[in-house]
Order: sequence, then structure tokens, then C-alpha cells
Amino acid sequence: MNHYKLDILRKLSVEYRELNGAHVETVRSPPSAVEFAQMVHVSRPVIIGGFKTDALALWSDEYLKTRMGDSKISVAVTPNGLADAITLGPDGTQYFVEPYETKMTIRELLEDLHTSRSDGRRDVLYLQSQNGNMFRNTSLTNDMTEDPTEFGPLRKDISREISWASEALGKPPDAVNVWIGDGRSVTSIHNDPYENIYTVIRGTKHFTLFPPTEGWCMKERSYPHARYTRLTSHSPLELTPTPCGTPLVRWSSIQDPTDQAQLPPEASPLQITLHPGDTLYLPAGWWHYVRQSGITIALNWWYDVEVRGMNWVWLSFLRCSGDDVPEGNDEDSSE
Amino acid sequence: MNHYKLDILRKLSVEYRELNGAHVETVRSPPSAVEFAQMVHVSRPVIIGGFKTDALALWSDEYLKTRMGDSKISVAVTPNGLADAITLGPDGTQYFVEPYETKMTIRELLEDLHTSRSDGRRDVLYLQSQNGNMFRNTSLTNDMTEDPTEFGPLRKDISREISWASEALGKPPDAVNVWIGDGRSVTSIHNDPYENIYTVIRGTKHFTLFPPTEGWCMKERSYPHARYTRLTSHSPLELTPTPCGTPLVRWSSIQDPTDQAQLPPEASPLQITLHPGDTLYLPAGWWHYVRQSGITIALNWWYDVEVRGMNWVWLSFLRCSGDDVPEGNDEDSSE
Ligand SMILES: O=C(O)CCC(=O)C(=O)O
Ligand SMILES: O=C(O)CCC(=O)C(=O)O
Repeated sequence: MNHYKLDILRKLSVEYRELNGAHVETVRSPPSAVEFAQMVHVSRPVIIGGFKTDALALWSDEYLKTRMGDSKISVAVTPNGLADAITLGPDGTQYFVEPYETKMTIRELLEDLHTSRSDGRRDVLYLQSQNGNMFRNTSLTNDMTEDPTEFGPLRKDISREISWASEALGKPPDAVNVWIGDGRSVTSIHNDPYENIYTVIRGTKHFTLFPPTEGWCMKERSYPHARYTRLTSHSPLELTPTPCGTPLVRWSSIQDPTDQAQLPPEASPLQITLHPGDTLYLPAGWWHYVRQSGITIALNWWYDVEVRGMNWVWLSFLRCSGDDVPEGNDEDSSE
Repeated sequence: MNHYKLDILRKLSVEYRELNGAHVETVRSPPSAVEFAQMVHVSRPVIIGGFKTDALALWSDEYLKTRMGDSKISVAVTPNGLADAITLGPDGTQYFVEPYETKMTIRELLEDLHTSRSDGRRDVLYLQSQNGNMFRNTSLTNDMTEDPTEFGPLRKDISREISWASEALGKPPDAVNVWIGDGRSVTSIHNDPYENIYTVIRGTKHFTLFPPTEGWCMKERSYPHARYTRLTSHSPLELTPTPCGTPLVRWSSIQDPTDQAQLPPEASPLQITLHPGDTLYLPAGWWHYVRQSGITIALNWWYDVEVRGMNWVWLSFLRCSGDDVPEGNDEDSSE
């Protein structure tokens, strides 16, 4: 990216901020389909109250353990709580590292989360498979064989789609995910090509948000890929670079976007805290970094972003910034 | 504008075109509010069938003359059919010229339009006051004294607002206009900060459209302002420059955008023809040039564009192109 493009992106982000301020709207009850369509058009985050899923009332530890029984679920394991994040390898290189994945019962997961809080040395577990672990688009045909889930016994507690969102967007969600973790897990800053409805069932989630216009502030770089592996089920996790030839992964080089020192002065994060029963409409393309406190359970519905019209053209334009930022604009990069 | 910004705008317009093609959607009946909200989000023109106003059935010449009687209406007069357009002055300078405005009965207007077609020498009349000549936003309070109209007797034949559009946009229209003219009048290429619902009652309207991403192709320039005036009600029209100090008017320097030779090769117009009963959703920011055949009557509802979110930032970004285009990119400018 040359200086001129960077200048343009900087000006657009300043104008956007001047026009929209730092306000996050809160509504007391879920929008109608038309109101949600307006929210999507404006594309600003909104905190929505009063969105009810059965899971919110039902999902105690006892309930989850009883219903799930001995079924195994896929859980991400890392030494540091950073799944899908930039991490320094033993060779001094920074990698984009995916977590080790293991299978366990929900009983084992919950027990680990309860005890690990008083035990700093343990590996960090985060159920964050985010591949439509509750429902995937094919499942909306009601043909379960096409969409196996590890969470079958819990499906009845959440709806496959959100009527006002599906009606507003003219389509069902692409994926519905459950997230279970604790305060040691952090989701690194990134954005998704999805309109996201994210609701908290237990614990507290802290979102740090930036509009798509501040993509240039995220200092995306290209990183080699790695994965946590272990030799035997009891060996320690090792950061293992993926064999050469694997494409580089473009990711933000900002480790902690709540630390203003890591950001250009033009970037101004919106901070949002969600408690059980709170729901966030997180518009497509918005950058988000997620921390949590306590044992957390959350659900989210991902709807494919509209690609017709200008939306996708703009989001791509705002994203293509990164490695080729002139050195002088990249003061605190450690590469 | 420097070469870099022009390069960026060119690339965006090419990407936009590649992604969206040249297709104009047609729907057989008016959308629901949710469907219209989706159309606005996609921001592509749509031809809508089956949108009924009483005016469509009622507005014969006889009906209009009888209802309007001797009330006077404001009509634009030009020697050449170009109201609000770039015109060469007698001093060899190009001006943005506003029409002479006169008052007459609808009977006089219609009679002139009928006879003028066989008489090339006459001044051209166009009822195009476009100031909410049927309804203005204040009128939606139902307080007529706040919104005098020259068309009082015709108001009952059209609705102040379009339910699906007002519901989708969360507000009433800013203005409702009637347009009455004939094939000698042309509306020069421009864009508006309005979501526009445009319906044809009589005659044929030919729209030439370009997406906001092709704003850089419109070669906007700054022109001194002028107006057609006449000394007495029977003197010929004179192009009269407005006294110095009046701000310059930015306007497209393209006279006829249906002539590809006047456009950069990247610009590719969409051509739309509307017959009586056809309605066009013309999204905010889209460039339009309008010709007509026969005696034409049309109505349109203008809804303020959404300025929250990115919409307005983008539209402004795409508009600010023009005078400072480097000479080399402006081959056929005549200034
Ligand atoms: O809850 C989290 O840790 C991350 C959520 C997230 O990134 C998403 O919903 O897109
Ligand atoms: O009908 C015309 O001549 C022009 C219409 C127009 O420019 C509009 O509706 O914005």
C-alpha cells in the first residue's frame, strides 16, 4: 500500500468517526424484521435486550452434564489462551497459530474450567470450534444426517434461526455456534464476512470493536502458519510450524487493541460488555477482540454478508492494507 | 484529485461492475417493507410493476384542466429544453443555467405541449419545480398552511407517502413532486442524496443510469451560475450570468451520457425505459440522465438518504472528483 492509499483510508476513517461518533445504541427488545434491516443498512453495533433462548434459562452445569452424558465434544487447547492468534515461536519467528484440538465430555470441560481458575499451570481449554457446531446451513433442511453435530442433545434449546434476522436478510444463518470458556481465553482481533448475532448465556464477555474504516489501523501482516501439537496425550503442547508451501495467513499484528499505545492515534475502540441475556448485533466487517470473565457460555448466529451492491467492494477496499504499509507508518511493529 | 485517487476510483468502479454486472431487476408487484429495505441495502435500481396511484387512472387532460381550473402553476422555460444544465453563453463561457420561471394554468401548459410538437421555434416548457411541489415534509403533519402547494386539487389523487418505503426507511418522504413535459426537455446527468421512487403516469421516460462508483467518469467541473431571464413577458429569453460572488456550481461536464464517446471506457450506462404504470426505485447517489417521449407526466417520492454508518462517507468519497483530474485523464473536456 502506498502513502496515498493510506492517506485516503486515514481520511475516510476520520470522517466516519466524525459522522458516527462513539455511541453504541441499545434497544430493550429484539427489533422487528424491518428494524433489523435498517440496523444492517446502518451497519453499527447494537446491544439488544430481551432476546430469549431456552438455553438462557436451562443451561446449568447439571443440565448440560445430564443431557450431554458421555458424548465427546471438540475443544481447543493452548498453553496461553490464544487460539487462532499471533504467537512467537521457539525459533523467534511470529506465527499464526491454531490450537491443538482434543475430544472430551462436557463434564470434563466444565470441571477443568472450574478448577483451572486456581491453577495457573494448566493448559487452557476453549470450546470455540466455530464451524457451525450447533447448526450448519445444510441442517436447515432438517436433514440431520447432512449436518452431524456434537451437541445434538442441546439443539432443542436454541433456535436454528432468528426469525427477525432471517426475514430481514432474506436467508437463514450460515452457522450457529456455541462458545464455552473462561477468563484465560482471548479471541484475537479479526473481522468476519458475517452479520453476527451474539448472545451471552453465562459469564461476561468484553468486546473491543473497530469499524471497517479502521482496518488500516489493524496493521495486518502475513504470517507463516503453525499449530499446537503434542506427541502423546500427556506430552506438553509444542508450537509446530506447518510445512513450507502452506499459504501465509494475513492477520492483525496488534496483540492487545485495548492498549491504545499499540494503535495509531486515529483508532478509537468501542468497548462493549455483555452479561447473560444481552445480545450484540455485530455488523459484518467490524473488527472485534473478545475477552471474558468467569466461566462463559455464548451462542452466535452468523449470516452471510450481502455481497451485492457496494458493500463487498468497500469492505475489500478497506481490508487491503498491511504488509506494504511504508515503514514510517508502522512505528511499533516488532517484525 | 491526484492520479492515485483516480486509480483507486477506477479500480473500485471496475470491481463494482464485475461483481454486479449490468442487470436491472424487475419485480411484478411492489415490495414489502422488508423487501424494500433489502433493495435499499443492495442499492441497485429496480423496476417495480403494479404500483398504483389514483393519478394513473384519473389524470386525463380534461380531468387535470377541470380540477385545476384557473389556478396558476410554476413552469420552467428554456429556449432548448435544458433546465439546470451546462450551456454555452453568448460570451463563449460555459454556465450552469437555471430556467426562467413563469406561472400559467395547467390548461395553458398542456395546450402548449400539444401544439409545440409541430412548432420547433417555441420556448420549451417543463413543469419540474422539484421542490416538493405536491407535498413537502412539513405537510405530513396535515397542516396545509405550512405547506402551500400549487396542486391542491390534485393532492387527493396521490398518496403523501408510500407505506412500504416509509416503513423500510423509518421516515416519511422529504418531498413528492409532479413532472409534466415533453420530448424536448432533457434532465442533465446528476445525482441526488435521495432514495427515489419514480412512477410514470403518461408518456415514456428514458433513464440512463450509472452507479455512484462511476462518479469519477462524470467529469464534474465548477461552473459560474446563470439564469434565463427576459425583459418583458414577450421578450426572448436571455442567458444572464449571475453577479460575481455567487459560488460556482459543480456539475458533470458530460452533455450526453448516452454517447459512449463522451465517457471514459470504464463507464457503462444502464438504460431503462419506463411506460405508464412502471415505477423505478432509483437508489441514492446513482447518476441519472432523463429523456422522454410524448407528453409525459410522472410523480416521484424522495426519501432522505441514510447518512449514518458508511453510506454517506462513501458517497462523498466517490463524488469528490473533478476539476483537479490530471489533464491526461480528461481527453475530451472542452474547457
Ligand atoms: O466469543 C469469542 O471468543 C469470539 C466471538 C467471535 O469472534 C465471533 O462471534 O465472531
Ligand atoms: O424526470 C426528470 O426529468 C428528472 C427526474 C429526476 O431527476 C429525479 O427524479 O431525481
